[in-house]
Amino acid sequence: MCLNLLFRFQAANGLPCRGKVLNLDNMNPNVRRVEYAVRGAIVQRALQIDKELKEGVKKPFTEVIKANIGDAHAMGQKPITFLRQVLALCAYPDLLDDNKFPDDSKQRARRILEACGGHSIGAYSSSQGIECIRQDVARYIEKRDDGISSDPDNIYLATGASDAIVTMLKLLVCGKGRDRTGVMISIPQYPLYSAALADLAAVQINYYLDEDKCWSLDIAELKRAVTAARQHCNPRVICIINPGNPTGQVQSRQCIEDVIRFAKEEHLFLMADEVYQDNVYAEGCKFHSFKRVLFEMGPEYSTTVEMASFHSTSKCYMGECGFRGGYMEVINMDPEVKAQLTKLVSVRLCPPVPGQALLDLVVNPPQPDEPSYDKFMKERTAVLAALAEKAGLTEQIFNTVPGITCNPVQGAMYTFPRITLPQKAIDKAEGQVPDMFYCMKLLEEEGICLVPGSGFGQREGTFHFRMTILPPTEKLKFVLQKISDFHIRFTQEFS
Amino acid sequence: MCLNLLFRFQAANGLPCRGKVLNLDNMNPNVRRVEYAVRGAIVQRALQIDKELKEGVKKPFTEVIKANIGDAHAMGQKPITFLRQVLALCAYPDLLDDNKFPDDSKQRARRILEACGGHSIGAYSSSQGIECIRQDVARYIEKRDDGISSDPDNIYLATGASDAIVTMLKLLVCGKGRDRTGVMISIPQYPLYSAALADLAAVQINYYLDEDKCWSLDIAELKRAVTAARQHCNPRVICIINPGNPTGQVQSRQCIEDVIRFAKEEHLFLMADEVYQDNVYAEGCKFHSFKRVLFEMGPEYSTTVEMASFHSTSKCYMGECGFRGGYMEVINMDPEVKAQLTKLVSVRLCPPVPGQALLDLVVNPPQPDEPSYDKFMKERTAVLAALAEKAGLTEQIFNTVPGITCNPVQGAMYTFPRITLPQKAIDKAEGQVPDMFYCMKLLEEEGICLVPGSGFGQREGTFHFRMTILPPTEKLKFVLQKISDFHIRFTQEFS
Repeated sequence: MCLNLLFRFQAANGLPCRGKVLNLDNMNPNVRRVEYAVRGAIVQRALQIDKELKEGVKKPFTEVIKANIGDAHAMGQKPITFLRQVLALCAYPDLLDDNKFPDDSKQRARRILEACGGHSIGAYSSSQGIECIRQDVARYIEKRDDGISSDPDNIYLATGASDAIVTMLKLLVCGKGRDRTGVMISIPQYPLYSAALADLAAVQINYYLDEDKCWSLDIAELKRAVTAARQHCNPRVICIINPGNPTGQVQSRQCIEDVIRFAKEEHLFLMADEVYQDNVYAEGCKFHSFKRVLFEMGPEYSTTVEMASFHSTSKCYMGECGFRGGYMEVINMDPEVKAQLTKLVSVRLCPPVPGQALLDLVVNPPQPDEPSYDKFMKERTAVLAALAEKAGLTEQIFNTVPGITCNPVQGAMYTFPRITLPQKAIDKAEGQVPDMFYCMKLLEEEGICLVPGSGFGQREGTFHFRMTILPPTEKLKFVLQKISDFHIRFTQEFS
Repeated sequence: MCLNLLFRFQAANGLPCRGKVLNLDNMNPNVRRVEYAVRGAIVQRALQIDKELKEGVKKPFTEVIKANIGDAHAMGQKPITFLRQVLALCAYPDLLDDNKFPDDSKQRARRILEACGGHSIGAYSSSQGIECIRQDVARYIEKRDDGISSDPDNIYLATGASDAIVTMLKLLVCGKGRDRTGVMISIPQYPLYSAALADLAAVQINYYLDEDKCWSLDIAELKRAVTAARQHCNPRVICIINPGNPTGQVQSRQCIEDVIRFAKEEHLFLMADEVYQDNVYAEGCKFHSFKRVLFEMGPEYSTTVEMASFHSTSKCYMGECGFRGGYMEVINMDPEVKAQLTKLVSVRLCPPVPGQALLDLVVNPPQPDEPSYDKFMKERTAVLAALAEKAGLTEQIFNTVPGITCNPVQGAMYTFPRITLPQKAIDKAEGQVPDMFYCMKLLEEEGICLVPGSGFGQREGTFHFRMTILPPTEKLKFVLQKISDFHIRFTQEFS
């Protein structure tokens, strides 16, 4: 700060002013507080190592395996043919005359193009998203929820679910000091939430998932967290990620009911991050949408609890992260606030139209009587079956390693195992968080990039990492073996 | 506010609480202050009328012509073949074996795919954008600026220029009360700026363009504005739109030099919105990039003035708005701030990859020795020639109407004519801003959707509207005639 004041003094007195207009001291302090571990220091270092390898620097490995992020295609998963055929047709409609494309892909492309300005995906769409796509999303939700109605006017397409989540949080934040909006997030959490809250200068209220009970959510813990928070802020929002990221748990119907009851009692807006809704692997586990449970609880709840649910084209079987497609459905939102939401999203004009088109195909996939159906189902099933296999494999292998404990990966695409670190390693880490020290050493020695548990939050004194289960099965086995060996070596080195 | 307090009291005392968690009184007050006229009330009404027409409601017209927004494809402009061929190849690489596609389009697609994770545009890219595309952008800038060097590390790809502009403003905003960051914007302005400043609770500092001198920028006016603003905030940023939106002027080299000198003297960060850099029509006018002028002014300026320049795939000859592609180049930015910027953009993971691919083609178009060159140049030239013709036509026709005065459309895609409104009309408008009253009446009677000048800002007591010049020539003539007739009728009605 001092330096900056000095420069201002110099400027005011006509002295040469050498300070930057924009520097670390005078930039937006909220932005400085933002942290996003999934692409943090460790990923920067991984990219550097990649470059060093390309420049011929010798390492104990030949490639960096980036298991830090849920990026299916980067891990070798092939795009679903039907989705890409329709996208190509939308991009270059001359192909509509080409015999190579099945009729249903052409019919889908024509329908999307007809809904675009000038029949081009290069036109802006309406800010809320193309109307016929919002209708398809609503029908998809109705089908998913066994007929509970969904209104296309409550659907907002977005630039990935991240965009919708940040927009929703932005609407909700107000107040100063003790009146500042508090937002309840799980620990461990997906760091988009903590980053957005730092950016918005909202108060983050942590509630802890129970690692000993497979990362389940306990209402007593929610009550503890909200009661403590009321001393210093105004809790207004509860965020739930189900299936869990980074923790991979799938919530029971009972638990969802309890959360809804809690949200109503405590007068909280409910944000349900359900981007992994098609990624459920464990036997006996099933995805229950918050909306469906809300409506099945009867009008006392279904007409009062305010809620937003988020979905994305980046996960599930398609893994189309690069297209940045997604949507949110808002329920029981004050119509005046909805008008404000619509106004707010209009400033950015519209979500990317190719991502909207892709979303349309995801919510409206080939039907059994259509020519693309068999291939589509085969590809879809193969991806989901492989994920299920890899989820089981991951849990199984990690749990054979002394000092690693791993809950079942019931859903989503990550494992978040707990690692026991020797005291000497904790001492040795010095400035660094111990699990960052661990992950950095793993990266340098084995070329495997994970995210330290501290980037997601964890109970004090415990250490974890997040790893995606996305690498192809053989490569995943290799990665699991390498991490296991490293863990044993690390433990010995610091014992 | 009272109602909200009452609900809180009820909740605290266990009384039934019927208030919404989120309502107009307790939502983010900054969001409430956001306004975005380009998609405001008049566009909502236009969409309604569209629906009414489809439902068979009789109107004095058969379609609504949306001249409110620079949306080229929606106005019938055809996509450029080369761009769409490469995008289709990227979306569905099986087409790389297809003879229908020229070799250079395949070569471009292969290069982009090789730079993508898993060779798929469905993978996340690095948050700053794909490296080889940033290299192409840097080379494009170097060519544009006759060899002045550009560093790919200073290029940030974005979800359209809007995204980059908001991100840059967000970095710059800090302080409370009289220390709050002030941002100088032109009046008339593109309302993304006022909207972003409201959202960030920054102070908007208006400087007025000189309508009598073809919307030129006068340094004395900049000095007046910044001096007045220093009484109540901390001016740190000046935003310039060149070529101008909504005003269509193209700045002279001299003017740009003056602005740069002013920014240095006043210790301001310079934001140059140059998304219309290829849209220059008037004889004697030429686009001069701020960066080039900065560097030609010598090291006293080129090593000190901090700057960001913005570009987009949505305008120029391609008009690919739906893809949300764009970039910014930052110059002389503090390396620590750059690291913060990189961190901030990483929270949203990456800009849409199809938009990045499109940007790559725009900055690296077919070369004279490549098979797509002739067709590409023919299409590009046709679009730009038609725009130049329509720019002339618009000025010419409007200036024949008593009560409409129109500066030449030197560049960009809009005209912002001044309209004289009879006092009776101003009185009649009552609650409404008079130019909104005028535009609404035009919409209801003629089915033409314009944006009232008040949405962009204008000197008190003057009235304008913004209209794009994008409709096809014959339709544009029709629109110009309809507006002219309406203006005369409106003037008579209220005289």
